[in-house]
Amino acid sequence: MANEPVEALLFDVFGTLVDWRGSIARELATLLPTVDGDAFARAWRGRYQPSMERIRSGRRGFVRLDVLHRENLLETLDEFAVTGLNDEEIDHLNRVWHRLAPWPDVVEGLMRLRKKYIVAPCSNGNVALMTRLAKNNGMPFDVILGAEPTRSYKPMRETYLGSADLLDLPPGRCMMVAAHNSDLAAARDCGLQTGFFARPEEYGDGHDEDREAGADWTIIACDLLDLAERMGC
Amino acid sequence: MANEPVEALLFDVFGTLVDWRGSIARELATLLPTVDGDAFARAWRGRYQPSMERIRSGRRGFVRLDVLHRENLLETLDEFAVTGLNDEEIDHLNRVWHRLAPWPDVVEGLMRLRKKYIVAPCSNGNVALMTRLAKNNGMPFDVILGAEPTRSYKPMRETYLGSADLLDLPPGRCMMVAAHNSDLAAARDCGLQTGFFARPEEYGDGHDEDREAGADWTIIACDLLDLAERMGC
Repeated sequence: MANEPVEALLFDVFGTLVDWRGSIARELATLLPTVDGDAFARAWRGRYQPSMERIRSGRRGFVRLDVLHRENLLETLDEFAVTGLNDEEIDHLNRVWHRLAPWPDVVEGLMRLRKKYIVAPCSNGNVALMTRLAKNNGMPFDVILGAEPTRSYKPMRETYLGSADLLDLPPGRCMMVAAHNSDLAAARDCGLQTGFFARPEEYGDGHDEDREAGADWTIIACDLLDLAERMGC
Repeated sequence: MANEPVEALLFDVFGTLVDWRGSIARELATLLPTVDGDAFARAWRGRYQPSMERIRSGRRGFVRLDVLHRENLLETLDEFAVTGLNDEEIDHLNRVWHRLAPWPDVVEGLMRLRKKYIVAPCSNGNVALMTRLAKNNGMPFDVILGAEPTRSYKPMRETYLGSADLLDLPPGRCMMVAAHNSDLAAARDCGLQTGFFARPEEYGDGHDEDREAGADWTIIACDLLDLAERMGC
């Protein structure tokens, strides 16, 4: 069966569009120069899935990712024996997620794609986070979708299906774009089309699972500019 | 007490940013040339508040405005004795709300304001409607807020407070911008700052209540460009 024409591109953000590891390490080099910024970033991010899993499983009600990030930050500061930060400094550090830098192909790729498609994040990041991240970087989204508007964390079906529904589109007229095979597998399971490119620098060494496409995704590209070209932009 | 610095501008849309009456009348001149398009537009819009009131009062659960618009359209077609449209034609006519034209100062005004502020609709229009309306007109919103993300219709407090909360801002750091005094009164009651300019052409003759500012709003401007200038843009 031929694919339906795509009207909206839904983007994973952390890792796919922005470099969380490098961005956090760079800020920490200034804020906490005695800490190994790269290790700190990976340890902080390592608490991401378990903290959402408590919500996915129903053991905890929905709270936005800024809240989970801050809780996870306090634990990570403990782990790295960082003491003496006041609440304002901790809040500032927590909002590093609002200031992450995009990969070099992202702004141009989104600018090209938005001429033909609705472009929106479908991220686990909350609305305030995504809005400021996009604004800080000139990422021209048409609308912020994803976890908070659907009150569910990927890979729950509701995040994908609820995001398509907010656009009043059947899932098959949306394409999920991600550098993570597991995200695309969940989106495909909900009927969305899928676009993949790898971000080998996301984690650095020792994280091999997303170095290449793990299935016959609708589009397999080199990066966002290549995906834009394949999508006729 | 001095006002807090504003970080986000929340916009009323129908009437304030876009000309629903003129846009609908122009489309009807082609689609239904025997109908008085201006009278039809006003009759259709006349069913807007009562249809939302059933939801505000709790007599009906939340449904998005596209649904209310379609129900109200069917009644208006009856009133004007229009018959013979098929479902697809009715759907197309209903989506005229996605294609409304902005007033001449709007796109430039938003472009200027977004350089300094988060700009977002806080409208009773649903996400799919607002996303396509903005995209069709080049209105560069950072995020779509308002009725559907908060599952409440203005002037309920939840629409204003929930929109500010999605941005993680206290109400006083948001400014509601509208050409309708009642919208601003409700927003001020929730602690938001307020910006007003009149749109005397919105209804045409016989609708005098919003020809001028009805209170000492935070900013009273001539139009969106004047408001941008007064906001330092």
